[in-house]
Amino acid sequence: MTSRLTPVLSRIDTDLSASLDRLLDLMRLKSISTDPAYKAECARAADWLVTDLKSIGIDAQTYETPGHPMVMGHIDGPENSSAPHLVFYGHYDVQPVDPINLWSSDPFDPQVENTAKGKVIRGRGSSDDKGQLMTFIEACRAWKSEHGALPCEITFFFEGEEESGSPSLVPFMQEHKDKLKGDVALICDTGLFGHDTPAIVTMLRGLMGEEIVITAANKDLHSGMFGGIARNPIRVLTKLLAGLHDDSGRVTLPGFYDGVPELSDDLRAQWDALGFEPEQFLGDVGLKIPAGEDGKSGLQMIWSEPTLEFNGIIGGYTGKGFKTVLPSQASVKLSARLVGDQDPHKIRAALHKYITANLPEDCTVEFNPHGASKASVMATDHPAFEKARNALSDEWPKEAAFIGCGGSIPIAGHFKKVVGVDAMLIGFGRDDDQIHSPNEKYDVECFHKGMRSWARILDAVSQD
Amino acid sequence: MTSRLTPVLSRIDTDLSASLDRLLDLMRLKSISTDPAYKAECARAADWLVTDLKSIGIDAQTYETPGHPMVMGHIDGPENSSAPHLVFYGHYDVQPVDPINLWSSDPFDPQVENTAKGKVIRGRGSSDDKGQLMTFIEACRAWKSEHGALPCEITFFFEGEEESGSPSLVPFMQEHKDKLKGDVALICDTGLFGHDTPAIVTMLRGLMGEEIVITAANKDLHSGMFGGIARNPIRVLTKLLAGLHDDSGRVTLPGFYDGVPELSDDLRAQWDALGFEPEQFLGDVGLKIPAGEDGKSGLQMIWSEPTLEFNGIIGGYTGKGFKTVLPSQASVKLSARLVGDQDPHKIRAALHKYITANLPEDCTVEFNPHGASKASVMATDHPAFEKARNALSDEWPKEAAFIGCGGSIPIAGHFKKVVGVDAMLIGFGRDDDQIHSPNEKYDVECFHKGMRSWARILDAVSQD
Repeated sequence: MTSRLTPVLSRIDTDLSASLDRLLDLMRLKSISTDPAYKAECARAADWLVTDLKSIGIDAQTYETPGHPMVMGHIDGPENSSAPHLVFYGHYDVQPVDPINLWSSDPFDPQVENTAKGKVIRGRGSSDDKGQLMTFIEACRAWKSEHGALPCEITFFFEGEEESGSPSLVPFMQEHKDKLKGDVALICDTGLFGHDTPAIVTMLRGLMGEEIVITAANKDLHSGMFGGIARNPIRVLTKLLAGLHDDSGRVTLPGFYDGVPELSDDLRAQWDALGFEPEQFLGDVGLKIPAGEDGKSGLQMIWSEPTLEFNGIIGGYTGKGFKTVLPSQASVKLSARLVGDQDPHKIRAALHKYITANLPEDCTVEFNPHGASKASVMATDHPAFEKARNALSDEWPKEAAFIGCGGSIPIAGHFKKVVGVDAMLIGFGRDDDQIHSPNEKYDVECFHKGMRSWARILDAVSQD
Repeated sequence: MTSRLTPVLSRIDTDLSASLDRLLDLMRLKSISTDPAYKAECARAADWLVTDLKSIGIDAQTYETPGHPMVMGHIDGPENSSAPHLVFYGHYDVQPVDPINLWSSDPFDPQVENTAKGKVIRGRGSSDDKGQLMTFIEACRAWKSEHGALPCEITFFFEGEEESGSPSLVPFMQEHKDKLKGDVALICDTGLFGHDTPAIVTMLRGLMGEEIVITAANKDLHSGMFGGIARNPIRVLTKLLAGLHDDSGRVTLPGFYDGVPELSDDLRAQWDALGFEPEQFLGDVGLKIPAGEDGKSGLQMIWSEPTLEFNGIIGGYTGKGFKTVLPSQASVKLSARLVGDQDPHKIRAALHKYITANLPEDCTVEFNPHGASKASVMATDHPAFEKARNALSDEWPKEAAFIGCGGSIPIAGHFKKVVGVDAMLIGFGRDDDQIHSPNEKYDVECFHKGMRSWARILDAVSQD
């Protein structure tokens, strides 16, 4: 441990209670971005962050958008330093609190609670994302108070629309590209792997969504009068969908696997070391057999292999009891999770071609596209990645790993596409944080070790 | 034509206007059986029928049930006659009238209207079933007024719960089995074939319904986090359903076709003569290709072949837009139309076995049965069948045929099972009558020729 890091870590330990108070203060602001009733509270949260950043000597201000304000702050690093310029992203808005009756306490009157599993910060936004973004601000505050300056140039960037689709994000990033163009972006909106393995997400799956509506007859028919002679669109649809996977679980669309890379030996070793137990992961939700392609490991199935999933299906009579109807329409919403260099547009085209080619002549099909994003794969060769991984390993009981993420975190892709910067996604949430749900919490341990983690990362990446 | 028939037909022609007035009178009673608000109106309709039957000299009365009253009437035939005892069934209750705003006139203020296609009786119940049952009563009235007596023993049986599931029907028939035990039952609740081919329905398909609910995970999952490793019940269900029909359209369940008879040469000839055009039948509802098993004719597909249809399917997110959920459940409601001697219970067992055997180990399935009735196939060897067919052929421009009916008409099965009597289903409705829908009508021509048809049938079946 370098001598300059030691006092920073001590400062973080000593000031934990004050750090918690500041977080609780921010959490009291009801910054629910999706509900117009809370517009003023969102603006107040943005202002709170500006005031807080200024209190550490960071030059900060809010920026109006058509929705909720953005917050940006900036502080220079040491002169003539070769340390990288870091751009830190978090979001100050939170999810709605419904169903409110399932909360054991007021979601906007946060408390530090003692529980059987340890101390937790209870309240909306504790984990997603106010608690997480404050780990970084608090680490900077401790560093600044010990050394009078930060070890590298840092840009702070906070959004207030993440929970409501980020409508202003890309235009804003385009407009402020120059300010956001650091060497590495840091995004604190993810979690630990398992209970205490720190992780840097370096692979995020992309998404291609499509709704397919098949119409046979021009109205619902009586299955007695027409059953047997008239085309049943549910039968047509189920047959088409059943043809999309072969018996080994592979997607049958021609070209679907174009651009899917082999897992590198290095990543395979890191992932094996994580000791992921598919049976336990699935057991938690009542399942037991990994359902992906034969021969792939559990982590490959959720991180580095593509999927084609049916998210919703409907057709005919679905109410109580029975109606012997022969429906006019049946539809499915499906989505592919994409990896590596898979092209969502080519896959959509292959899907259209398959459906159209196999559709009975007297049916029609309507396609409603929904989203198309390629996977984000970070170029981990920037030295900051390996340095951050070592810094995290020093703080936590287990070795840190570069991992994947099955879902998409659009901001990571935006940093890459709009600003041209790779992002390190590092966060300290736990699986049981109940984000987006009643009784959201953030472990005090995660908050505390999260601050210490960032101090270690600042130290590590800012020196050769 | 026999000399005794001629005056009866003349009487019917002469009295058409009075017959229409009586029908309109009955139609003014709002006998909607499913809506408790109309209970008194149902009772009034039953009383109306009793009064009307008595006016022809028929001994009639209402019978209380837990629901709406039954009406039974009886009149003896000539002494020492070998003429059969006929039991005539119809129902005096009607469907609700919603959506009322789509009616062009008051559904319970019936009128005879001139239309481009001829005169029609407009109003609720005109075709289903008040107009149809009155064709028989009016034929008896005309016969009685000309000859002072009817040519055979007749029992009249009118139900008031047909449009609300007939809850009292079977218990009532069991209790009054002796009175209902004629030689042949007549049921007037069906239609002509095409525009003007009279028909006797002698085959009704049975039904086996089942809801299948497949559960994978114990809650809905995020398709990013779990997609690829967790079982998707929509995928499981669509694969199972796709396996239920082979490429030729045959149902794959073992034993499904046990008891399906070959079509007799006689029926095949009658059906060929009907000149059924599948393309036109399907064209009316926007389809064009008969979707049944390869090598079967259109009429076979809807009358004498079994089906296995999916009536409703649902799973996952089916609202507007998209939700990349990996659902916990997916379910289907399916039903088989059965013919010949197919056994609904064996078929249900085969279905359960197929689903259970092919279900992934970490899924569960729940089966909810819905109905099981065998097909009704009338023993057309009673001479009344052939006599009635000839009588109908005499009245209408086209030759009458024994036909099938794709749906089920439970009363026909009850006559067979409870009373042990085969039924002749003869009716004069047309496809465009809009029964169960706004602006229901019954062609005056059908009403008129319907009365004349029954007079001819009474004449034909009551003599050797």
